Amino acid sequence: MEKRKRSETYSFLESISGPRSTHSETHGSTQSSQRLLAYSDALISIIATVMILPVAHTKIGEHEELKESVQVLLTTKIGVYLMTFLIVTVAWAAHVRLFQVIVRIDDCLALLNLACMMLITFLPYTFSLMATFPENHLGILLFCGCVMVIGLIQALVVVYAFSRPFLLKEQIQTSEDQKVYKHHILQVILKVPIMCFLASIFSFIFLQLSYVLLAIVIFLPYISQLLKWCRSKAIGQEETPDSEPLYQPSEPLSKERVEAFSDGVYAIVATLLILDICEDNVPDREIVRTVYNGSLVSALSGYGPEYLAYFGSFVTVGLLWFVHHSLFLHVTKTTRFMGLLNTFSLAFVGGLPLAYQLTHEFPHNSKNELEAIQVSCVIIFFVGINQLGIWVVALYNEQETLHPYVRYAGREHIFMLAKLALYPCVALGTFFLTCILSKFSASIFHLMEITVPLAFLVLRLLVRVALAGLRLVFCPERANPRTVLEEEQDALVT
Amino acid sequence: MEKRKRSETYSFLESISGPRSTHSETHGSTQSSQRLLAYSDALISIIATVMILPVAHTKIGEHEELKESVQVLLTTKIGVYLMTFLIVTVAWAAHVRLFQVIVRIDDCLALLNLACMMLITFLPYTFSLMATFPENHLGILLFCGCVMVIGLIQALVVVYAFSRPFLLKEQIQTSEDQKVYKHHILQVILKVPIMCFLASIFSFIFLQLSYVLLAIVIFLPYISQLLKWCRSKAIGQEETPDSEPLYQPSEPLSKERVEAFSDGVYAIVATLLILDICEDNVPDREIVRTVYNGSLVSALSGYGPEYLAYFGSFVTVGLLWFVHHSLFLHVTKTTRFMGLLNTFSLAFVGGLPLAYQLTHEFPHNSKNELEAIQVSCVIIFFVGINQLGIWVVALYNEQETLHPYVRYAGREHIFMLAKLALYPCVALGTFFLTCILSKFSASIFHLMEITVPLAFLVLRLLVRVALAGLRLVFCPERANPRTVLEEEQDALVT
Repeated sequence: MEKRKRSETYSFLESISGPRSTHSETHGSTQSSQRLLAYSDALISIIATVMILPVAHTKIGEHEELKESVQVLLTTKIGVYLMTFLIVTVAWAAHVRLFQVIVRIDDCLALLNLACMMLITFLPYTFSLMATFPENHLGILLFCGCVMVIGLIQALVVVYAFSRPFLLKEQIQTSEDQKVYKHHILQVILKVPIMCFLASIFSFIFLQLSYVLLAIVIFLPYISQLLKWCRSKAIGQEETPDSEPLYQPSEPLSKERVEAFSDGVYAIVATLLILDICEDNVPDREIVRTVYNGSLVSALSGYGPEYLAYFGSFVTVGLLWFVHHSLFLHVTKTTRFMGLLNTFSLAFVGGLPLAYQLTHEFPHNSKNELEAIQVSCVIIFFVGINQLGIWVVALYNEQETLHPYVRYAGREHIFMLAKLALYPCVALGTFFLTCILSKFSASIFHLMEITVPLAFLVLRLLVRVALAGLRLVFCPERANPRTVLEEEQDALVT
Repeated sequence: MEKRKRSETYSFLESISGPRSTHSETHGSTQSSQRLLAYSDALISIIATVMILPVAHTKIGEHEELKESVQVLLTTKIGVYLMTFLIVTVAWAAHVRLFQVIVRIDDCLALLNLACMMLITFLPYTFSLMATFPENHLGILLFCGCVMVIGLIQALVVVYAFSRPFLLKEQIQTSEDQKVYKHHILQVILKVPIMCFLASIFSFIFLQLSYVLLAIVIFLPYISQLLKWCRSKAIGQEETPDSEPLYQPSEPLSKERVEAFSDGVYAIVATLLILDICEDNVPDREIVRTVYNGSLVSALSGYGPEYLAYFGSFVTVGLLWFVHHSLFLHVTKTTRFMGLLNTFSLAFVGGLPLAYQLTHEFPHNSKNELEAIQVSCVIIFFVGINQLGIWVVALYNEQETLHPYVRYAGREHIFMLAKLALYPCVALGTFFLTCILSKFSASIFHLMEITVPLAFLVLRLLVRVALAGLRLVFCPERANPRTVLEEEQDALVT
């Protein structure tokens, strides 16, 4: 109370005339960038997954086999979705690396960043124009225009941040080569807009060339990274660590932002179907009265498959998120290659709700139903395999990327492996079972949907039992039955 | 390299037979709950805003005045949206308070939480069934069923967490009254499911009563909080601080989670229109060839208003996020009442893109266009006023809720006030201008769209100039012109 009285003695006029208000210290006007980045991650993850919606809403006749024209349309749309996803994640990675250098923001940077976000959210649309009208240069012009403006804004951000060094990360703040850093970063950032400028000029002369140019711009960092990694692993040579902590494409991505971006994608994807259900599956009052004699239950029972598809996809996406979450708990640093695998994994996740939706859309025991179920299995398999890939890559560099207790032969190693292997194994098993017992494909699929969550709940126990079994087989002298029993009890308790 | 070799000497069999793998320490199996909560926030914020989509996709004839039947339909849908938003935020608040007690999680809790999320995401649908068929008890049964299962899962979470006290927050871990805490929390949590159980029974006897019961359950904490706050302010008595840090509805919400939830809502809302644009506004190849003679530009020019609406709404939502972000930078603690105002503010934000979309959908200078523009202004005004309300409430308890430099008469106080007041003032001004100059309403609106971002960019400068002006008028003896000029330069530099 006393403090309050003290502060109340400053009147309004005192506050505007006194020296306190004109004090131009940095506190209060600069801010930690954390929340801005979280918001950007949320925006970008929504945009990355948005092109799945046109795929979802492609109308397919219920009682016809998938016609060729529909297949072509679907393939185009899926292609657009995948390309958009990759392009947006490239833009996101550039954003991550930029804000690994700029660690504090002020109002001006926040506003510039919002402008940048606005243009990034427009990219999917320009891209889908390109895909629909590949022979028209309007799409490519719009796309290049957006990328160039984004590049210019980012360059502006860099120039602004270097003119206020307290916004930069400690390392650069104290460094004497600030100018070198600045020029290097500007070079890296402006490379893409310049290439896009060339591509937009070429689009008037020779359209195909500008597409090639764009593809090179966008995927070069990934490809070069992949080749470098493959070569270093094939020859077995030590990777030379970057001697300078400069702004490089191979710099690991901030783990927090990879997590935030993944969370955004998983959250959007998990709710994709409920968005549709809330909008479409509330029956009309008139129809219920006339067609169903006012019985709401019988009107809703027609939507049963939709609900099933929703719960199935939510559970699967949720559990895949859970595996991802467990995996990244053990990771200390995300290398670029792990980021790439994560992107692939997320891109497949986006297709999951649609595949699930299809499984329940076709008549029972039709060829389409079987195909839809198998597609779902394949997608789940690829999501899981890519997650497993992240783990394998992390194990290759386990000293830098993993917590000690989860490294090879660590305490949690086998349990993590089991978690990661569960979905790919189940998906593969279901796939082959449906091939053999194609008549019971739907039942097998539903059984899988129900058992997997239970399997995750008792996974720790299952792993213990399996290990005990292995021990009994391979080292019978060490495994007296009491210990095994004890461990099982342990497992039940912990 | 040496370390690596050391770890490789543990073979697989050693790892499964050795004592290391059976070690049942808590490390690795328990985790910080941060990412789980971030994911939950993302899911809940999507669900909170999802019912705006049916509002958005209500078809309105282009050249007709808003008919009464359409108006009734729209009002119902908007009502459903608002109620869903409030109900979901109530569920969210309960979730926040639960995980303020449980600060660490393990796999089992993560899976239970996902199950809980799945049911929360289903609430909007049951609610929209209730709204469409108010005289049918199916909707209310489904809703109550979901709430009861959510309550049971949460009770399970509490029981599980108290059986493993290392998951709880320090304070409770070390307390001797763990059982008291547990029973108190269970009581609070199970109150809602029990009320819902009663409501579902009443629904068979007297439907209206069960609606009243539900309304009481859902809004009682808010209303009681509001009344308590009003009374304490009116009488001027000191609020008695809660003597025990128990699990209470008036406990402040975690600031991080309020931010995360708000970020999610702002992000979804900002991208609502681009979702539609990407899906609907790519013209068909056939139509372009036949109707527009293959000219893509002229085909796209018809979509001009949609693009304008998108950019307008993105900018507005982005800037409102920016204000929110600035506000919460200065806040140290969120009281329940601030959370309530934040919820109202967010609920209005959800309507913004649609209002913007409408402004460009009607023919120029029609009565509908004017109405749409005025509705947009009203929505912006209410968003801003609620944000301002958060600030005013925070000022009332500034000792607990605000950083020192932004309290009344603090260094940043006036600048923050200007930031918060900008949008309400502009919206109000635009509203009255369009009333007077109804012929130029569209031009005034567009002008507003362009000037507001610029105003934010130079706001610090504007505030300095205004303060200097005030000082010149009120304290002319202290304001020699040199100082004013100096300050302006200061403002330009910082």
